Amino acid sequence: MNPLILNLGESSLFKGYTIGELERVFSSIHYRMEKYPLGCLVRSRGSVHDELLILLDGSAVAEMQDQSGKVIRVERLEAPSVLGSAFLFSSDREFPVDLVADDRGSTFLLMSRETVLRLCRNEEKFLLNLLRDIGDRINLLADKLFMLTLGTIKQRLANYLLKLHRSNGRCFELDMSREALADFFGVARPSLSRVFSELVDIGAIATRGRKVEIISVEKLVNILNFER
Amino acid sequence: MNPLILNLGESSLFKGYTIGELERVFSSIHYRMEKYPLGCLVRSRGSVHDELLILLDGSAVAEMQDQSGKVIRVERLEAPSVLGSAFLFSSDREFPVDLVADDRGSTFLLMSRETVLRLCRNEEKFLLNLLRDIGDRINLLADKLFMLTLGTIKQRLANYLLKLHRSNGRCFELDMSREALADFFGVARPSLSRVFSELVDIGAIATRGRKVEIISVEKLVNILNFER
Repeated sequence: MNPLILNLGESSLFKGYTIGELERVFSSIHYRMEKYPLGCLVRSRGSVHDELLILLDGSAVAEMQDQSGKVIRVERLEAPSVLGSAFLFSSDREFPVDLVADDRGSTFLLMSRETVLRLCRNEEKFLLNLLRDIGDRINLLADKLFMLTLGTIKQRLANYLLKLHRSNGRCFELDMSREALADFFGVARPSLSRVFSELVDIGAIATRGRKVEIISVEKLVNILNFER
Repeated sequence: MNPLILNLGESSLFKGYTIGELERVFSSIHYRMEKYPLGCLVRSRGSVHDELLILLDGSAVAEMQDQSGKVIRVERLEAPSVLGSAFLFSSDREFPVDLVADDRGSTFLLMSRETVLRLCRNEEKFLLNLLRDIGDRINLLADKLFMLTLGTIKQRLANYLLKLHRSNGRCFELDMSREALADFFGVARPSLSRVFSELVDIGAIATRGRKVEIISVEKLVNILNFER
């Protein structure tokens, strides 16, 4: 068995699997490995998606282009990462993004839809992991979409901080890096930093690295209600 | 067996099931029914989500509130509709919306997570239907999100029309009503109608009801490239 398989124990789909269990599973199913050099297009957007991809080693980026050719980076993936688990069984089965290798040699494990279905039926742990993985993705998308329906960046950040405040109390650590957060809000990082500073300046919050203290809930709610 | 169960044959989860098969499945699993009067809150956003809901009869609306209390209608559902299939297995398992009955008596069928898992393992058709249902939802969300990253309504509409043009040729019917389309773009219907008229006025498209003819691809691409 390829030793990279053992990395799967860290992936969302094989969470909770011991080395022995991974060996048992992967000695009984069909799969293959593909290795891509830096900058190589692994899958193109719109291509037929009939295999599950798991990034086992290296990194990759997911990109999208609008009709005018503008490239938007959707996500950067580090091994181990599962790709397109949700799209594999959708009606049109089109690969949703351009996937580009972003390391000297990014290695993917590929499994057919049939193999994934067989695992679902025979391995309850795998089935639960797959459904959790897809559910978490849809959660993230739905949150992001809801965020974008809010008006300004300042309102998005206020809404987000109030949500963390509600579940964690007055002091908490951000659950994402500033970079991931900027991406989540659909804005550039400097714009987000500026808004953080504004919130500090008006006395709504205090920050130290990832740590945030909510100083005035009222000021944050006012931003949501009245600023346009 | 409750005769409403037979409506399930029309739902995404039991697509392809004959009446006989539905009788077989529902005589061997646990489920219950709940009936709600008009305007009644069926599930609140953030409540623990541990049962699959299927709207069997009537209609319902899914709503969200931002922190300031502004209500946003996410979706209107007509029976038969499956609700929250993707969230049922996600890590936090919070119900993502406020769900409100929107008919004289909306009837829901409820199934525990355990029952859903058992069906997945014993019924390959159900498993495929569930994964397809979730995959299609995530597709729709991803499309909508991508759309919102585009600048103006005019650019969103141009991008959308170019996509339909690519897959259907010069003449096609819109795959959604104007109302659903406005919702998809995150704008009010009159704003969308205004933009449709603009595109007709500049000679980019011609319309008749849902039918659209692309007159000038170049003009649509220019909108994407240069208008801000």
